[in-house]
Amino acid sequence: MFQKVLVANRGEIAVRIIRTLRELDIASVAVYSEADTESLHVQLADEAVCVGGASAQSSYLNRQNILSAAILTGADAIHPGFGFLAENADFAEMCAACQITFIGPRAATIELMGDKANAREFMRQADVPVIPGSDGFITTLAQVQQVADQVGYPLLLKAAAGGGGKGIRKVERATELAAQFTAAQKEAESSFSDQRMYVEKVMTHAKHIEVQVFRDHAGATITFPERDCSAQRHHQKVLEESPCILLTAAKRQELMQIARQATIAMDYLNTGTLEFLMDRQQNFYFMEMNTRIQVEHPVTEMVTGIDLIREQILVASGAALSVQQQDIQLCGHAIECRLNAEDPRHDFMPSAGTIDYLYWPLGGLGTRIDSGVYAGSMIPPFYDSMIAKLITFSPEREQAISKMSRLLQELVIKGITTNQDFEQALLADPHYLAGTLTTNEVSQRFLPQWLAQQKLGDEQHAAI
Amino acid sequence: MFQKVLVANRGEIAVRIIRTLRELDIASVAVYSEADTESLHVQLADEAVCVGGASAQSSYLNRQNILSAAILTGADAIHPGFGFLAENADFAEMCAACQITFIGPRAATIELMGDKANAREFMRQADVPVIPGSDGFITTLAQVQQVADQVGYPLLLKAAAGGGGKGIRKVERATELAAQFTAAQKEAESSFSDQRMYVEKVMTHAKHIEVQVFRDHAGATITFPERDCSAQRHHQKVLEESPCILLTAAKRQELMQIARQATIAMDYLNTGTLEFLMDRQQNFYFMEMNTRIQVEHPVTEMVTGIDLIREQILVASGAALSVQQQDIQLCGHAIECRLNAEDPRHDFMPSAGTIDYLYWPLGGLGTRIDSGVYAGSMIPPFYDSMIAKLITFSPEREQAISKMSRLLQELVIKGITTNQDFEQALLADPHYLAGTLTTNEVSQRFLPQWLAQQKLGDEQHAAI
Repeated sequence: MFQKVLVANRGEIAVRIIRTLRELDIASVAVYSEADTESLHVQLADEAVCVGGASAQSSYLNRQNILSAAILTGADAIHPGFGFLAENADFAEMCAACQITFIGPRAATIELMGDKANAREFMRQADVPVIPGSDGFITTLAQVQQVADQVGYPLLLKAAAGGGGKGIRKVERATELAAQFTAAQKEAESSFSDQRMYVEKVMTHAKHIEVQVFRDHAGATITFPERDCSAQRHHQKVLEESPCILLTAAKRQELMQIARQATIAMDYLNTGTLEFLMDRQQNFYFMEMNTRIQVEHPVTEMVTGIDLIREQILVASGAALSVQQQDIQLCGHAIECRLNAEDPRHDFMPSAGTIDYLYWPLGGLGTRIDSGVYAGSMIPPFYDSMIAKLITFSPEREQAISKMSRLLQELVIKGITTNQDFEQALLADPHYLAGTLTTNEVSQRFLPQWLAQQKLGDEQHAAI
Repeated sequence: MFQKVLVANRGEIAVRIIRTLRELDIASVAVYSEADTESLHVQLADEAVCVGGASAQSSYLNRQNILSAAILTGADAIHPGFGFLAENADFAEMCAACQITFIGPRAATIELMGDKANAREFMRQADVPVIPGSDGFITTLAQVQQVADQVGYPLLLKAAAGGGGKGIRKVERATELAAQFTAAQKEAESSFSDQRMYVEKVMTHAKHIEVQVFRDHAGATITFPERDCSAQRHHQKVLEESPCILLTAAKRQELMQIARQATIAMDYLNTGTLEFLMDRQQNFYFMEMNTRIQVEHPVTEMVTGIDLIREQILVASGAALSVQQQDIQLCGHAIECRLNAEDPRHDFMPSAGTIDYLYWPLGGLGTRIDSGVYAGSMIPPFYDSMIAKLITFSPEREQAISKMSRLLQELVIKGITTNQDFEQALLADPHYLAGTLTTNEVSQRFLPQWLAQQKLGDEQHAAI
C-alpha cells in the first residue's frame, strides 16, 4: 500500500481524496496555487506545497512543478482528481518515468479515449453501439454523401483530429452537405494537418446515460448501475441521479453488459465512465469515455454503498477490487446537485468573493454534502465555479427529490451568488419530475422560462 | 395522514423531526422557551409558538401551554422527541382527550414501563429474562435472605415505587443485608408510602445491549439488529454503535426474538427500545424499556436504511409499517458520537455560550451530522448539553471508527468547550477498539487515565 499520496487538484475533490487517504492511514500531500493558500484542501492535508501562481496553467496544470513536489515530499502516487491533469496522457507517462503511480488508467488508454474519433472507431470495432454515422474515416465527398443518405439529417461533420468543440460542423439539410464538407476538410487540413473526417447523426430528444466501470490489474471487471445526467446546460451537468427511472432491470443489464464488453476490450485499468446517448426507443449509443473519477460519482456510491475513491487508491496500489459484480446491488435512488458560485440570472457569470456566512443543511438519513469551502473561504475567480455537491439518497426517487428540495431551501450562503434558486426550480420542473428530461431541454426550454419568471418577479417587486 | 404536527422538543431532535415532516409535506409547529427564540428548530419550522420561560419546567415541560399551542395552531398530532414529555403518560392521555395524536405508544404502556418494578414483573411473566433477583415483591427479611442466597452478592435492594435513582441500596455482603433491608424498607415507606421492595443482582463486567422495536396498529411487529451502548459515563451514553461485534448471527436472532416476544406481549404501539445487560457468557437480562425514540436511533437507520422518524409519523397516523421483518437487513457498521457542550476536564461541567465559529467535517460516503446548532447559535445553560451527533457508517467497523476519528479531528467549534478531545481519545481506547468495553469502564478505568494524561500534558506545557 502507498505510504504517501499527492493530490494534484483543489476544491471539493481534493478534500474528498485527502479524507479518504486519512481514513486509509495514508499521508496526504496537497498542492496549491498562490490564490489557494487558505483553501480547505491545503489545511486538511498532512503536507502542502505551493506549485505556482494563481492561473491554472502555472499551478494545477504545471506538470513539472507537481512532479517535483511529489519527488520532494516522497509521495508514492499521485491522484489527479477530475479536470486539470486527470486526462493528460503525457502527465501519466511522466509519473511512470519518475516511478510514481498515477492513480488512473494506463497512459495509452487515456490517449486512445482522449481522441474522440479513435475512441468511436475502437468501440465500433469492439461491437459497442456508437452514434449512427460513418464506419471509419471519410476523405471524399462521395463517401460522405453515401453516409448522409443512410443516417439522415441533421448530422455533424467532425475532424478526426479535432476535439474541444473544434473542427465540428452541423449540416441541417442535403443541399448544404457538399459545401460544408469541402470547407470542413479544408479547415481540418489547416488546423490539424489531417484531412480525415467522420460523420455522426445529431441525436435530438436523447438522454445522457453513463456507466461507471472498474477493472483491476488482475482483470477483474465490474460495472455499476447507470447514472442519468440529462440535466445539462452547455454540456455542463447540473443535476445527476442514479438510476435512470425509465430503464427496466433488463435494459439496465443490457447497458451494463455493453459497458463491460467495452472495458474488457480496452483492458482498462482503474475506474472510468462510458457515456452514452439513449434515444426514445431506449437504444444506447456510445458518445465518449471519461478516463477518471467524475464529479457525479457520489450518486453511484450512495446507491451501491461502495467508496469509489477508496477503490481507486486500492486498485492503483495493486490490490484486487474489494467487491465483485454480484456485490453491486442497486438499493434506492440518489440525486446530486452541483452548487456553483455563479449567477444564473446573468448568464451564469462566475461569482468570486468571500463566503461571509455558511449554513449547511446537513442532518437526517440519506443526506451528504461534499464541499471544499468553509465560512470565511475566498472563492478565487480562476477556477471552476463548483463549490459543493449536495447529495440525497432514499429508497424512492420522490423522497430523494423531496430531501434535495429541503436542503436547497435551508442552505444559507452569504457573500457570493450561487445557482441555489435555479437548481431548486429545476427540481420542480415537470419533465425533471417525470424523469424524461433530455440533454437540450434545460438550455432550450427550462432556462428561458425560468429567466422570464425571474424578470416578472423583479418587475412585480419593483412595482410594489 | 396528518396535515400539521407540533414538535414538543428543542435541539437536534426537534430539527430532525421538523425536517422529516417537511419531506413528508406535513406542516410543522415548533414550540420554544424564551431562551430559545433564535434556535434552529424555531427557524426551520413552518410556525413557532413560545410556550414559556427559560426553565424547562415552565416551557418544554409545560403540558397545558404545549397543548394550547397545538390547539391554537390546529395541529393534528404531537411528536414529543426524547426527554421532556416523551415518557409522560399523563401528557399522552391529555393529548388523547384533546383529540390530538400523541406520536408514541399508548399511555398505559408508557405508565407500565415507566414503573421499573412493574416492568420487570411484566417481562418476567412474559418469559423475558430479567436480571437475577426476586420473583415479584418482597416484604419480609426472610424472603430477602432467601433471594440473596440464590443470587449472591453484591446485590441491589430497590423500592418498587422508586425510580430516578431513589430508593436503591447496594448490599456488598451478607452481614450487611438485614440492616440495609430494614433501613431501605423504612425509607420506601416514608418516601413512597409503599414498603414493597425487590432485589436485583449487581451485574459487573456487563455490556449494555439494546433492541429497537416497532409495532403498528394492525399488530405487525419488527425488531432491529442490536445497538451496543456500553460506553457510558454516569448512565449517559457517550459512543453508540450497531451492531455489537461480539454477537454471532445466531445470538442476534435469539436477542431479536426475545425483544419481539416482549413487544407482542405488551401489544406495543409505535417504536421503543428494550435495554438489556449482557454478561460474559452472552446471556441477556432485561433492564428497562424506553417508550420513545432514542438519541442513538441514527446508527440503526444507517445499518438498515430505514428512516425511523418517518415510520413513527406514518404508524402514528394509522398507516401500516412500510417494511416487514425480512426487509431489515444488517448491512455494515455504524457509530454515533455525542458531541456535548461540556468540559470533560472539569467534571463535565456544561459550557454555555455562543458558537463563534463552526466547521462541520461533513463529506464523503458514510458520514452524517445531526445537529440543532449553527454558527452564531447561543447555547443556553438550561437544557441538555448535547449539541450534535456525529454518525459514521462503513461496511466494516474499523472503517467506521477511522471515519469518526477523522470527523473529530477536523471539527472546529469556537466559543464553547466540548467533549471532542475526550471522545477522540475514547475512540482509540484498546477496549473500545476490541469491542469489549463494559458499562462501568469509561468512568472507572478510562476517565481517570485520560484525566491524568491531560494533567501531565498541562504540566509539560507549563514547564516549556
